Amino acid sequence: MSHHLVGGLEPPYYTVVFTSVQTQELEGYGEVAVRMGQLVKDVPGFLGLDSARTPGGVGITVAYFRDEEAIAAWRRNLEHQEAQRRGREQWYQRYSVHVGRVERSYGFERG
Amino acid sequence: MSHHLVGGLEPPYYTVVFTSVQTQELEGYGEVAVRMGQLVKDVPGFLGLDSARTPGGVGITVAYFRDEEAIAAWRRNLEHQEAQRRGREQWYQRYSVHVGRVERSYGFERG
Repeated sequence: MSHHLVGGLEPPYYTVVFTSVQTQELEGYGEVAVRMGQLVKDVPGFLGLDSARTPGGVGITVAYFRDEEAIAAWRRNLEHQEAQRRGREQWYQRYSVHVGRVERSYGFERG
Repeated sequence: MSHHLVGGLEPPYYTVVFTSVQTQELEGYGEVAVRMGQLVKDVPGFLGLDSARTPGGVGITVAYFRDEEAIAAWRRNLEHQEAQRRGREQWYQRYSVHVGRVERSYGFERG
């Protein structure tokens, strides 16, 4: 299991926690999700992304940003705005977003 | 799909983001995970929990707390400390924890 996790970031930084439950109308979703994952990397101050989804259940994506300006730049991205619109129209039953300023983080890695 | 998501919390509050990759030695894990999910509910200031795991991949749990004192109380819980010890010894290949203070949150629910 060589899955990467975002870690080792120096606080302060920000976590944008996106929790969601999808509909069954997922046409186009996979393609757009991959595109967004590539596009966000171009945002200055973007630090990484973790993502998990229980099949048929809850999905959680955590995006890490250096500062509020980086988050605002991603929010202003027009292709991202269009993806959000499609999400509300088609892919998501519900979602929540929690933007937090991280002052403390730590990790563990098996030796 | 009637999965619940934590939402509608009034800032400020805290997100504790726990990302992990498991080992293949999961004996005892399910039972302890269920127990921890019950036990944390008794912590004053605990606000909720979201959890997702991609099969064979990354898991993300987000715990929501009203304040730092609530997080500290959960960290002091001895049964929780024992579960963490077993996690490092047996269940987790790696994990990261990011503690963030939330000043802004929002959500969407299909009408």
